[in-house]
Amino acid sequence: MFTLAIHGGAGTIRREAMTAESEAAYHAGLAVCLKAGHAVLTAGGSAVAAVSAAVVALEEDELFNAGRGAVFTSGGKQEMDAAIMDGRNREAGAVAGIFGPRNPILAARAVMASEHVMLAGEGALAFCREAGLEFADAAHFFTEKRWQALQTELARRAAAAADTRSDADRHGTVGAVARDAAGNVAAATSTGGMTGKRPGRIGDCPVIGAGTWADNNTCAMSATGHGEYFIRWAAGHEIDARMRYKGETLTRAAEAVVTELGAIGGSGGIIAVDAAGNVALPFNSSGMYRGRIGEDGVAWTGIYKEALRAL
Amino acid sequence: MFTLAIHGGAGTIRREAMTAESEAAYHAGLAVCLKAGHAVLTAGGSAVAAVSAAVVALEEDELFNAGRGAVFTSGGKQEMDAAIMDGRNREAGAVAGIFGPRNPILAARAVMASEHVMLAGEGALAFCREAGLEFADAAHFFTEKRWQALQTELARRAAAAADTRSDADRHGTVGAVARDAAGNVAAATSTGGMTGKRPGRIGDCPVIGAGTWADNNTCAMSATGHGEYFIRWAAGHEIDARMRYKGETLTRAAEAVVTELGAIGGSGGIIAVDAAGNVALPFNSSGMYRGRIGEDGVAWTGIYKEALRAL
Repeated sequence: MFTLAIHGGAGTIRREAMTAESEAAYHAGLAVCLKAGHAVLTAGGSAVAAVSAAVVALEEDELFNAGRGAVFTSGGKQEMDAAIMDGRNREAGAVAGIFGPRNPILAARAVMASEHVMLAGEGALAFCREAGLEFADAAHFFTEKRWQALQTELARRAAAAADTRSDADRHGTVGAVARDAAGNVAAATSTGGMTGKRPGRIGDCPVIGAGTWADNNTCAMSATGHGEYFIRWAAGHEIDARMRYKGETLTRAAEAVVTELGAIGGSGGIIAVDAAGNVALPFNSSGMYRGRIGEDGVAWTGIYKEALRAL
Repeated sequence: MFTLAIHGGAGTIRREAMTAESEAAYHAGLAVCLKAGHAVLTAGGSAVAAVSAAVVALEEDELFNAGRGAVFTSGGKQEMDAAIMDGRNREAGAVAGIFGPRNPILAARAVMASEHVMLAGEGALAFCREAGLEFADAAHFFTEKRWQALQTELARRAAAAADTRSDADRHGTVGAVARDAAGNVAAATSTGGMTGKRPGRIGDCPVIGAGTWADNNTCAMSATGHGEYFIRWAAGHEIDARMRYKGETLTRAAEAVVTELGAIGGSGGIIAVDAAGNVALPFNSSGMYRGRIGEDGVAWTGIYKEALRAL
């Protein structure tokens, strides 16, 4: 029995601003990424390999804010963060503020295989070159949609206007959690950060214990949302602690943390899986691009506060 | 009733390799930094202000690996990390991979006052310039002792020789925790990282929930040691969780985490204080430069596994 869940960002996703075509594209995109992870698990692959494959697929889809399609900083650059964690032994790897490696999650995985846990900036890029990771050029990562989103954001700031756009587009993140056939769990998260973010800003994604966490004894989780709050609440490790020390179920612990974050202004959501294969996908915003898939290979996906639909 | 504790790094501190003069210098240096924090608390300052002042003093003392006296990377540069957290509201600020601001802890404090929690590299430096922080030149930060330590480390690697030096010198960190007269706690940590570290490597110091944590409901803590393990074990938030959910005392929780880290190879130590003013200073290595001070202004300091001495 294995299972995998993914997210592609959470926030104020306005149904009225979304066309039927756009909705269908998100559902289809999520299904493709679910199936990328499913293929690994079906072949007997590990949870780590599965979440890695699912996040690579999310990074390749420009609909989502990670890898290709990453948002731009206020300086007009793209700076990506990613992290991965193995529930078997708490091995972890993270990169922050990188531009170049085609799939930041593979950079995080290479860091996990090293003596380090977290590498940033130029030093991280040198490590990626030594590790032989594939690099892509600016044209690969650039998307007109994200560039226009930056122009809109900068114009909004100049006018000090209220923000009526989807903040899921502005600070989306992608992630995957899995429980493999051997009962091991893993988590992976990747992001371009927030549109118009200050260069150098690091969110919760690469902070182990905040946006990414995995331990077979409790759960694997990946977060998306207003990262600063997820860091200050150690969201990932808080779910772990509630399960470990309070005996809470995965669902109860994940929902409690998402509710607590919502109460202090930390909008967003979490995907989580435990070693028994239970899945929780709570969010406190109006929507979260999300999906799950089990052994039967049926991809269940959703956007708003509604039941997932089989695709 | 207020109290403050500090550390200046933990590791294999070999008594036989230390002269009486050197030992005395460490005790005296720690006492100066304790008194810098004590002066703030005596004047009615907050725990945040006190840990900030104590860490500034540690950063100014070239004996310790932070600010002036920071160690060098394998590339011959200095890259500093720092973090601060306020137990009243879990506000937090961190910087990673910076060189220039004279006191990295003040950079972290400026980040805490912003909408961000963590800034790295060039973007962090731009933020520090905008915030009007004092910068220092390379001559200020350079110390012959640390430069020679890098040469020794590089030679050791070239010879693949066993390391017989003090690893407290190699990966020291400084930090402070305080409980002020109002009953609020705060923590601050600052480091140059590990001698000969890979450029871009980020340890536990600026990772909120790992090397730095503060919450009035539980404790304020600052860690020093092999940072990768402290990140993977979310050391700071783990102490919080044990106190919050298991009802453990500060001492029991801090000792349990340090013991658990030691069992997996994570050498180092932790300083922690709770809202009642209890202090714990556990370490699993042979030594930790450390000290504490209360309202009476007597500075208690220690290096090895021995009772603190009044200075």
